[in-house]
Amino acid sequence: MDSPKELAEWTELQMHWQEMSSVHMRDLFAVDDQRFDRYSLEACGLLFDYSKNIINSKTLDLLTSLADRRGLATKIQQMFSGEPINFTEQRPALHIALRNRTDYPIAVNGKDVMPDVDRVLQQMRIFTEAVRSGEWLGYSGKRITDVVNIGIGGSHLGPMMVTKALKPYHHPDLGFHFVSNIDGTHLTETLKKLNPETTLFIVSSKSFTTQETLSNAHAARRWLLSGIKDGGQVARHFVAVSANSKKVAAFGINPDNMFSIWDWVGGRYSVWSAIGLPIAIAIGMDQFVEFLNGAREMDQHFRTADFSQNMPVIMAMLGVWYNNFASINNHAIMPYDQYLRLLPDYLQQTDMESNGKGKHANGDDVTISTGPIIWGSVGADAQHAYFQLFHQGRQSTTCDFIVPVRSHNELGDHHQKLLANCLAQTEALLMGRSAHQVQHEMRLAGYPGDEIKRLLPHRTFSGNRPSNTILMEQITPATLGSLIALYEHKIFVQGVIWGINSFDQWGVELGKELAGVILAEMKGQSSEASHDCSTMNLVRYCQLVRGDTKPAAMKLDKPLTGYKMTGSQHSTGPTLE
Amino acid sequence: MDSPKELAEWTELQMHWQEMSSVHMRDLFAVDDQRFDRYSLEACGLLFDYSKNIINSKTLDLLTSLADRRGLATKIQQMFSGEPINFTEQRPALHIALRNRTDYPIAVNGKDVMPDVDRVLQQMRIFTEAVRSGEWLGYSGKRITDVVNIGIGGSHLGPMMVTKALKPYHHPDLGFHFVSNIDGTHLTETLKKLNPETTLFIVSSKSFTTQETLSNAHAARRWLLSGIKDGGQVARHFVAVSANSKKVAAFGINPDNMFSIWDWVGGRYSVWSAIGLPIAIAIGMDQFVEFLNGAREMDQHFRTADFSQNMPVIMAMLGVWYNNFASINNHAIMPYDQYLRLLPDYLQQTDMESNGKGKHANGDDVTISTGPIIWGSVGADAQHAYFQLFHQGRQSTTCDFIVPVRSHNELGDHHQKLLANCLAQTEALLMGRSAHQVQHEMRLAGYPGDEIKRLLPHRTFSGNRPSNTILMEQITPATLGSLIALYEHKIFVQGVIWGINSFDQWGVELGKELAGVILAEMKGQSSEASHDCSTMNLVRYCQLVRGDTKPAAMKLDKPLTGYKMTGSQHSTGPTLE
Repeated sequence: MDSPKELAEWTELQMHWQEMSSVHMRDLFAVDDQRFDRYSLEACGLLFDYSKNIINSKTLDLLTSLADRRGLATKIQQMFSGEPINFTEQRPALHIALRNRTDYPIAVNGKDVMPDVDRVLQQMRIFTEAVRSGEWLGYSGKRITDVVNIGIGGSHLGPMMVTKALKPYHHPDLGFHFVSNIDGTHLTETLKKLNPETTLFIVSSKSFTTQETLSNAHAARRWLLSGIKDGGQVARHFVAVSANSKKVAAFGINPDNMFSIWDWVGGRYSVWSAIGLPIAIAIGMDQFVEFLNGAREMDQHFRTADFSQNMPVIMAMLGVWYNNFASINNHAIMPYDQYLRLLPDYLQQTDMESNGKGKHANGDDVTISTGPIIWGSVGADAQHAYFQLFHQGRQSTTCDFIVPVRSHNELGDHHQKLLANCLAQTEALLMGRSAHQVQHEMRLAGYPGDEIKRLLPHRTFSGNRPSNTILMEQITPATLGSLIALYEHKIFVQGVIWGINSFDQWGVELGKELAGVILAEMKGQSSEASHDCSTMNLVRYCQLVRGDTKPAAMKLDKPLTGYKMTGSQHSTGPTLE
Repeated sequence: MDSPKELAEWTELQMHWQEMSSVHMRDLFAVDDQRFDRYSLEACGLLFDYSKNIINSKTLDLLTSLADRRGLATKIQQMFSGEPINFTEQRPALHIALRNRTDYPIAVNGKDVMPDVDRVLQQMRIFTEAVRSGEWLGYSGKRITDVVNIGIGGSHLGPMMVTKALKPYHHPDLGFHFVSNIDGTHLTETLKKLNPETTLFIVSSKSFTTQETLSNAHAARRWLLSGIKDGGQVARHFVAVSANSKKVAAFGINPDNMFSIWDWVGGRYSVWSAIGLPIAIAIGMDQFVEFLNGAREMDQHFRTADFSQNMPVIMAMLGVWYNNFASINNHAIMPYDQYLRLLPDYLQQTDMESNGKGKHANGDDVTISTGPIIWGSVGADAQHAYFQLFHQGRQSTTCDFIVPVRSHNELGDHHQKLLANCLAQTEALLMGRSAHQVQHEMRLAGYPGDEIKRLLPHRTFSGNRPSNTILMEQITPATLGSLIALYEHKIFVQGVIWGINSFDQWGVELGKELAGVILAEMKGQSSEASHDCSTMNLVRYCQLVRGDTKPAAMKLDKPLTGYKMTGSQHSTGPTLE
């Protein structure tokens, strides 16, 4: 795939933005009381209101034409039929197979993958039921009380986000913990509260060589063994999600307790696979299947709905509109729900790792904007933190408001207040408040004239800031599955428009390699590397302060005299070894 | 203050960026092995390396001249002497007084505020010692085991972030919890684990009318009283941080247990005040004073150091450089430390609420870029999530890497790996990897020629992406205090350059007002408001789904036929009332 820039639709959209950039959404609403009807959509338990965008019917027609011209229908077909759409790695991207549930066969290199998928789901069912029922016992014969997932990136964010989002569905006697960071604090603080006899570790790593995950897994293994001294017991407390059975066995994990993933599952799309094991233990396999079903429902909608009524396609094309034509390089995601608090972090990876790309399939440099910066956090809190910038700041942004109409924890009128706040923000961003209105209100409130004059500009709001609103009745496994799949397909569509590969991640390679070089130096095992003088001095500075190795070649540009070596007089807390 | 655009320095910086935009940092390092020496700085226990920026000595000279021309020295003096630099609200911004510790008097309207500050610190000392020693008892005579802070925005993020960051210094027998969200889930899930007999609530709200905080405080009060039925006991379990003693007393809190704040403390700068009470209970008053002292040390550095050696000034001016001249509208903050995981959220508020502004003091529209979008998360995890976009994406960003050289939880070689990863990322962002290098490496690794050709573009990295690196020996109360104050002053300097008021937040007003209107409708108490048809239909949709009130005027544009009313069959969990 190559650049869309040469298409007539691209140029037309550029010209069309010139028209629309001077339009205020207030005026679009003023002349059309059917705008909500026209620009909202229900599917898969989600209500998607996109009427508060700087668009008209021409915008949507042009965007749909662009999608057509980019061959989106064919690309969707290719994804669902297992073609190698991950073109640099020459693999399919088959997260949709993970929730296909025997609907139809999907062949990879001529072999139907569905039997494998079903086999692992069945293996997950047996295992999760053993843990949940108390049948699975630790080395001392006690049942499991805590599950610790050790993984990073896609093997961490997905299971953690979904497990926390579905807390109301959890087994009441099981606690869930997620360790990713190579910072020893993460594992240490997690294990402080746990008992080795009743703790089950899930080590998730496709290659079973991920540095952070394996370092943490080995430290956890030492913690377990420090009490029992019998390596054979590891198998009762460790299971793995991996594609590398040899390394899993070498770690001491029973191969029967390895849950397979395949190279056609990308890390950031793997929550539907055995990577979702902690979720399945938490909510039970039936509910996990509901979660898959919610995503499958969105898959079917995405495959079959006309683009003009297709939720992921519309969402994607609105993103293209702002990103490429209105030059808005970022998109904020605000769930108004405490259980969904990690959704923005999760979507940061899904989106930015997928579409943070700069090359077309043919190797040409991309010269248009691609994946935006994704950010955001729980909306109710964000209102009191950074919404000031949304309303009066100089940066442009677009945002998604996500809110369940009913709470799992209704408490007085709390949830009505929550909903009111969420909807009010979308209204405020749309409408703004004119100087005329402010003047009127300040007069009514009895402010003196000079005070009104002084404060007037600071109390006005331009409005005209776009947002989408996504409502669902309640956060359930199914609606959450639909919601995540919605974003996955949105990202896929945008990748197709931009002509990039949304399924590789070469950009993580270089940092890993350089870290290996620096680690050897930091440990005094190597002194040959030549870095820029910044990196070199920072490495030496760390060695000097830590004192655990002598700096290999201590030729600092300047003595670090100002540095206070006093530090904390505090205990550094318990260590694991 | 007005726009800086007319200044000669502004124009010169614009022209200078034209020169610098074609420079690769690789080349700047290649010709200058003193670059780290030149562009790094130590103060207050922090090493600030800013050599990996697209700057040369001319850049820094021009930026310093711009700061001079904007009267920065005078503005700093004004802040530290209590002048009403919050010009819309005609108040000083005196967070620096909170850590001044009787160094010198600071007068507000002719009255020295330091005696008040010291009085409250003394009150905090007595109270925190009573709680920590076990002298303070709950209604049934048991000592306090858990402290729940109820607040939102500045009354939440600051105490939460710092309390979690200083976990190694905590009292071992006390747990800390932070409730902000009006979503009933937040309080419900928090209280599930707690015992009313041993729980102490801190209600933090300057006005004591903040909707979210008071709703949660009243629900917490009902939870407490549901067991004991004696309103007089509230005083043993609730204290307040507020400026409104009447409302505090009406709630049932003993006025002796109200800790005062003043209107010259802005919410997002209030962690140093009694708003920091949970921190002080957690780490003890001596360590809290260390935290204040760390900030005071940065205050003194900021007030006295020459701009060319002034850490907050340099950091701020680099931000101006990228924001206003290189058109980079966002800045990512990546702490490589699990305890600091909430720092990016905290700085989002501090920065975006301060500088997300669009009016000059005289009421003129700002026509230059002001406060950037601040985002980020724990760096070790972010590498496996969104760093792909940093390395190969099409969006420009700048970032701060923050890492302690020693961990509070050293674990094998974990921390060396952590440091190696952090520094390697700064190196990779700087250097990139050329096609020539990739070709060489792929040949060595035995790839066939056509494979090399195909993958070459996807494995190259442009580099030249700017970053700052901040190192400290370890996270201590003092270094954390210095670090936060560094960012506070950075934000202040940028506000001065841009000619905006960094200390008001009018932008949060409109949403609050509209929420009040919608809430009344949602409850069926009002049907008169006229909204845009999107907001109106979303309100009705919520009413319809919730079923707790009849939609006041049910004239939906279309019947919401697709909506599934089935929902979850699960229990919605315990309710608090």
